[in-house]
This record gives sequence, C-alpha cells and structure tokens, in this order.
Amino acid sequence: MTRSDLDLANALADAARAAIRPLFRGKWSEKRKADRSYVTEADRAAEAAMRKLVEDQCPEDGIIGEEYGATNESAGRQWVLDPIDGTTSFIAGRPIFGTLIALMQDGWPVLGVIDQPIAGERWIGRLGEGTTFNGKPARVSPCKELSEAVLGTTTPHQFTGDDVDAFMGVAKSVAERKIIYGGDCYNYGLVASGHVDLVVEAGLKLHDYAALVPVVEGAGGMMSDWQGNPIDAQSDGRVIALGDPARLEDVLEAMG
Amino acid sequence: MTRSDLDLANALADAARAAIRPLFRGKWSEKRKADRSYVTEADRAAEAAMRKLVEDQCPEDGIIGEEYGATNESAGRQWVLDPIDGTTSFIAGRPIFGTLIALMQDGWPVLGVIDQPIAGERWIGRLGEGTTFNGKPARVSPCKELSEAVLGTTTPHQFTGDDVDAFMGVAKSVAERKIIYGGDCYNYGLVASGHVDLVVEAGLKLHDYAALVPVVEGAGGMMSDWQGNPIDAQSDGRVIALGDPARLEDVLEAMG
Repeated sequence: MTRSDLDLANALADAARAAIRPLFRGKWSEKRKADRSYVTEADRAAEAAMRKLVEDQCPEDGIIGEEYGATNESAGRQWVLDPIDGTTSFIAGRPIFGTLIALMQDGWPVLGVIDQPIAGERWIGRLGEGTTFNGKPARVSPCKELSEAVLGTTTPHQFTGDDVDAFMGVAKSVAERKIIYGGDCYNYGLVASGHVDLVVEAGLKLHDYAALVPVVEGAGGMMSDWQGNPIDAQSDGRVIALGDPARLEDVLEAMG
Repeated sequence: MTRSDLDLANALADAARAAIRPLFRGKWSEKRKADRSYVTEADRAAEAAMRKLVEDQCPEDGIIGEEYGATNESAGRQWVLDPIDGTTSFIAGRPIFGTLIALMQDGWPVLGVIDQPIAGERWIGRLGEGTTFNGKPARVSPCKELSEAVLGTTTPHQFTGDDVDAFMGVAKSVAERKIIYGGDCYNYGLVASGHVDLVVEAGLKLHDYAALVPVVEGAGGMMSDWQGNPIDAQSDGRVIALGDPARLEDVLEAMG
C-alpha cells in the first residue's frame, strides 16, 4: 500500500460520487438480481467508472466488483468494489447508503473506504495509519457497559435460523430504544466516528465487509466474526463491529 | 390557518434547526424517560426555542410538546411540537431524524412540517394548499402493485401482540429487499416526495403523527389508522401512510 494507493482510492470514490449523485431521487430503472436484491443504473455506472480507473492505473491488480464480477483473480492485490451498499436506501431516497472500496493484499483488507455521496462524507481506513473522516482523524468511543451501547443493524430479515436467537440475545442486552435499524455500511462509519458502539450483521459478502475492517479497526475498534475471529476473505458473512474491543466477550456471551 | 401561520411554522423549524445543529455528533448528555425513550439537551433546547416563539407571537394558542407538556389546553388552535422525532438516530449521528410541527384546529391537523436540520430538508403540508419540499411542490408516486412497493418502518420492536402479525402480513406482501427500517418521520417525507410508497407503524403519539398527515395528504397521498379511518387527535397510534391511496384496500387485506 503506497501513497498512490490512497490517491487511487480517493479517485475511485470521487468517480462513484460523480456517477451516483445525479441519479439520487432521480430517474433510474431497477432490476432484481438472482439474490433478490436490486440493482440500478447508479450501481452499474459507479462500478464501471471505478473499474476503468483501476484498469487504467493499476492494470495488474485484480478487481472483485459486486455488479461486474472478478478480473485478474490470481493477483496478490485485489480491489473489492461495492458501488452502492444499501441500494434499497438509494431507491428510497435516503442518504445513508455508501460506496465501498477495499484494497486486499493476499486476502487481507489493508485499505478501506466508506463514501456517502450525497452527504459528502468519506471514511478512509489504512492498516497502520489510522482512520480519517473527511480528512480528519476518526476515533471510536469507549463503551463501559453493553447495556448502554448503541446497536445498529440493517434489517431483522437478514437473520434466519439460529442467527435470529443470537441477534436477539444481543438486542435484549442493550436498551431497546438504542437499537437503530437500517443504514448498511453507514453504521460502520458511525462506529469509527464514535457515535455507534456495536453493529451485528449476517449474510454479508466480501464486497460488503472488506472495506469496513480497515475503517473500524483504524479508528481503534475491532471487527470479528460471530466466534470472535478476525475477518478475512474466507469469513462466513456474520460480522461484529465494536467501537470498544473490551466489550467483545460480553457480545459473544449475549449471542449464546 | 393564515399566511402568518406558515411564517410562524417556518420560524419554529428554523429555531429548532439552530438549536439542534451545533449538538449533532457533538457533546450532549441523555436521559431515559418514563416511556424508556431518550431525551437530550438538543430535544429540550429545540422545544424551548419553539415554545417561546409561539408564546410571543400567538399567546392564545395552545402548545402540546413532547418534552414540556401542554399549555392552553382548551384553545381551538394547538401547536403540536416534537423537537426531535428519532432521538435514537440523533444519538447515533444519523441525519434521518426530524423536527415535527403541527397546527391543529379543533382536533384536526391543518398544517404540518417535517424538518431535517442537518441535511436542510423541509416538507410543509397545508390543508388545501399542497405540500412543498424546500419550497417546491412535492408529489407522491403511483404504485400499481403492492408487491412493488417500497415499505418503510422504524423498528420491528414497535409491534407487539397481534400487531406483529398484521405488520408481517404487509411485509410479506412486498419484496423483502424493498423494506427499509429506521427513519422515523423522515420516511413520511419520502412518501410525500414519491420515493417511498408505504409506511406502517404502531405506538405513535399525537406529537409523532399530527404533522405527518398534512404533509402526506397535501402531496396526494393518504394517511389512515389500521382500520382505514382518518387520523385525528383521538387515533390509537397505529398509522398507515400511502403514496397511492388506491392501494389502501390491498394493505388492509394484507394486514388480515
């Protein structure tokens, strides 16, 4: 990861913003994908713009994109792109979706970007460098008791089978009026900035979670799977993001 | 309702913005109220600022405020104030809460404001005058099939007992990936602007719903209780907001 990687990451986020902003609350059509999620012209245009930049500037790097798949799959460096994480919020006109950009080195995320194109908010995390929010250092908040935590999760429908009980175990450990629903990647940015204490989700794919890890951990938080293990390219999509790593055991215990 | 009522409503929303904006993502303390929801200095300061304006400019009008209660309760005109609807989102640093201002005449809401102080977004609905969004006409969207509707609701925890089944009946009638959680009053503004088709909620109090009715209905939508009856000061807090009134029967049928 070099200075030019950071520049490229910013250029990718700028390109996605330029593609998405004119379409927000505007005219687009939507299609339902095989996984039953939706895709719009904004998703496609933003990913296409980002792919072109990577192909022009780092042609030997791999790309793993939500909408257009993988190229150069054997490369040690992979750009993982999710043009709009939270397409439902985009469709509904809510400015709490985000563009996700991760650089993975040998399977580990070393750089992550969460960009909110409408509010103009950008979190960037880099391994060993700390996380920034719009260019200024971002820092998590301490959380002394799980019962006082602000808990975020996108939708209850993401939990099925035993995962429902695990999530409800955490939900019952915090104050009911401190649970926020909706938000997708935006909630993880808010963990990095110290406004949200905990996010628990399931069913995430690599393009959903790769960028989140450097952002949350660079701000002093931690991310793990539901067993407390670090997140890598082989994770099962069940994630915990914690502003205060000291609460991990409490969360795992609450999950049963 | 006169031109000066609209001016006063705008002045109230401006005063609430001025009180809330400096505290967003800043330093405030929170207290848990009897109903287990939270209140911060931002809620209190915004309501106090609005009450002072009403008391100065329309001293004979009544005020019903979430934080400071009722004055002049026998007045025919009542200003119903919720300084921050979505305090949990405010606490979590998400710009999708809102200030709600309603003018009720003999128990009916004739003017409503939904104001988002951070994004600078304001919906104003007036009986017989149409709804505006930041000064321009707002209009709902048609929705030909319930299965294609974007459905919003703040949290699954608001539904208890039989209400759970009623809500799940609606949730199963729309595409799972078109349900947005979180958002409080903001979702109703998005109905008025044609981005969200349907909101189903329970447990709302007068200060939560009074302002929503003129906003949604002035934009061509409709609000009703869960039996399809109009909303007034005696409603039970179960509400439906529809962008396309033609879908009401489908929603009531899905609720069982």
